[in-house]
Amino acid sequence: MRAEVVGVGTELLLGQIANTNARWISERLADIGVDVLHHQVVGDNLDRIADALRHALSRADVVIATGGLGPTQDDITRQAVALVAGATLVRHADLEEMIRQKFAGVGRTMPESNLVQADVPEGARVILPGRGTAPGLVLDVGGVRTYALPGVPAEMAEMMESTVLPELAALAGPAAIVSRIIRCVGMAESRIAELLDDLFRRSDNPTLAYLAGGGEVRVRLTAKATSREEARALIEPVLEEVVGRIGDFVFTTDDEELEEAVGRLLQAAGKALACAESLTGGELGARITSVAGASDYFRGSAVCYTAEAKRDILGVSQETLEGPGPVSPECAREMAAGGRRLFGADVAVAVTGAAGPEVHGGAGPGEVFVAIEAEGVSHQRRLRAPGDREMVRRWAEQAALDLVRRHLEGKPFPAGVVR
Amino acid sequence: MRAEVVGVGTELLLGQIANTNARWISERLADIGVDVLHHQVVGDNLDRIADALRHALSRADVVIATGGLGPTQDDITRQAVALVAGATLVRHADLEEMIRQKFAGVGRTMPESNLVQADVPEGARVILPGRGTAPGLVLDVGGVRTYALPGVPAEMAEMMESTVLPELAALAGPAAIVSRIIRCVGMAESRIAELLDDLFRRSDNPTLAYLAGGGEVRVRLTAKATSREEARALIEPVLEEVVGRIGDFVFTTDDEELEEAVGRLLQAAGKALACAESLTGGELGARITSVAGASDYFRGSAVCYTAEAKRDILGVSQETLEGPGPVSPECAREMAAGGRRLFGADVAVAVTGAAGPEVHGGAGPGEVFVAIEAEGVSHQRRLRAPGDREMVRRWAEQAALDLVRRHLEGKPFPAGVVR
Repeated sequence: MRAEVVGVGTELLLGQIANTNARWISERLADIGVDVLHHQVVGDNLDRIADALRHALSRADVVIATGGLGPTQDDITRQAVALVAGATLVRHADLEEMIRQKFAGVGRTMPESNLVQADVPEGARVILPGRGTAPGLVLDVGGVRTYALPGVPAEMAEMMESTVLPELAALAGPAAIVSRIIRCVGMAESRIAELLDDLFRRSDNPTLAYLAGGGEVRVRLTAKATSREEARALIEPVLEEVVGRIGDFVFTTDDEELEEAVGRLLQAAGKALACAESLTGGELGARITSVAGASDYFRGSAVCYTAEAKRDILGVSQETLEGPGPVSPECAREMAAGGRRLFGADVAVAVTGAAGPEVHGGAGPGEVFVAIEAEGVSHQRRLRAPGDREMVRRWAEQAALDLVRRHLEGKPFPAGVVR
Repeated sequence: MRAEVVGVGTELLLGQIANTNARWISERLADIGVDVLHHQVVGDNLDRIADALRHALSRADVVIATGGLGPTQDDITRQAVALVAGATLVRHADLEEMIRQKFAGVGRTMPESNLVQADVPEGARVILPGRGTAPGLVLDVGGVRTYALPGVPAEMAEMMESTVLPELAALAGPAAIVSRIIRCVGMAESRIAELLDDLFRRSDNPTLAYLAGGGEVRVRLTAKATSREEARALIEPVLEEVVGRIGDFVFTTDDEELEEAVGRLLQAAGKALACAESLTGGELGARITSVAGASDYFRGSAVCYTAEAKRDILGVSQETLEGPGPVSPECAREMAAGGRRLFGADVAVAVTGAAGPEVHGGAGPGEVFVAIEAEGVSHQRRLRAPGDREMVRRWAEQAALDLVRRHLEGKPFPAGVVR
């Protein structure tokens, strides 16, 4: 079953809000095995809404429109649906009564204009609203099931859950789409694509897709079957194969963030972590503490943005600051050791480097050193991060967190330059 | 000029990400007076991408496609554009060289598969990438200007700013929409709406809009005229009126972030700042150092997540930790004083509180204290922040940064609970 989602609203075309309704609806349709092949967005214009609906009706089995069911003059999805279906709008006395009562219930006078929400295309069914005052509409247009839902996310979601998803699940029969995401750090997207090339070409179900960004690569496996269990069973052997090939660059198959994976490992090992940061300015600590419960394993971070602070607070030697300089493996090592000592932590990581745009400590933008110190462990690593200030910081954080992950998982540290 | 935005990517249709690129592009096009009449989204399928492009070309003056320009097998927007334009793909030697150098520059071996990114439809221009390796494409198809941009938001935005927006602004000629944003912290949206109610109703050009979020309120004034200068002149008197009414809760009329405003003030005053953080975990320092040039005025931040670290590193007294506890004005004051001393800074701010979801130091989620210490200044403030962990942290940062702003601007500190 192929579905299409049509968003109606000039605010979407002005970029005032993102089309989160389409994202939410698509995700829920995938869960019940309905393919979404297109999204469209149009403004509050009768002809253009009607054209968009006709276009969707010409190629989909189900059309879900959101928005334009409110009481104001620019809410005209109702008219467009009627136009496309060749039906006239008829005022429903029971809807009129419901709307009047909703207003009375909150002690407000109802503007008469609100009653347009009681107008329904002849032959359409109505989905009664729980929250708002706008009823949803259901009708068949040339054999294509068509839903018109309110644009307010909570009102839309309520009708999807109560009516649309159960109806479509019944129509689609026993079918489900399940995705699993494999998240990797320290290996380039193109290298991963090379390693998986034959699987990508050969595997129809599950299919493979890549998504790179934020200093990591995600490999998504999506399977289709008659039940979620069966879809999961189709994914399992391919997931194992993919993880086997990418090896210890995989940090999770549970779609958790790297800081969540690190937190989980620290929690399990009963170890405490501290950081010493320069170019990341506190972002490393901020990411670690964005996870609820981080106080169980996180002690703190010394953000030392100046050479003096590195010396006075972290105990980086004057020799190191004057010799190899603040952007060096020596400085990273002494920062990590100082952070470990200062906070009395089991494990400490440090990041130092030049975020850009200017040269810092003799190093060009993107030059970063990360270091880890723990009982019997002292390792430093250089990386050249691409992009602007924000990207360099993000890459530096990923590399630092990955050192902690590898240490706790007993995996080897990759040497040299990493991307 | 009518534009259409075509998003390419199966991840959009599976609902794994929202189409934020379309939102961002639409907002920027509105700024230069280009109307966006449609958005479309299609998956990674050659025929469907080509159909979507043809449909857009049939009704728009400008088509902007995003996504599908990466190096992997599912990136086929390049082929679809060539197909629709009736052009063959030709490998560009100079692009090949650029891509090889980008890999060499970060010390990585380039997988040969990456070179598909050097393929360009005959007759197309190329937008060179700063961040990623995917060039953007520009071509005219049947008289319609067509852009294909990468799907990674930062790479897309870079090419929009450098090339697409300036080109379209020039094509669109003398019609401009100009927006000015007044950003306020410490006053509720409903209070601001009350203060501006008559302006909101009366003013057609510029129009007023409110946007609340991230611990601040933005008032946007948007004027339309035949030139940017004329639009700006329409805005000016209304801007002054709005700023006059909201008073010292306005932190900028230049759409800068609060951390940028604070950086600008510190730079001008020649003062150095340090932080002491608990619940924000380093995010306060991270925000301050997200501004290029922060090393001129930022010394560092002591992120002390445990009571021991607050005592040992910041010198918070055992009495305070055992008496009023870590979430108290006393603790905030001693943290700020400790941070100022530790980093030898002119001004220091501290944040302590309970981010949630659990109770911390006897305080419920959302209970936060911020403090500022400077020569002759010692001020603490309690706030009750709404929402989840992330929102509470954000509100705490805003309140702390606002103390610095008010101190440097010579404005009074607001007392008591703030929302």
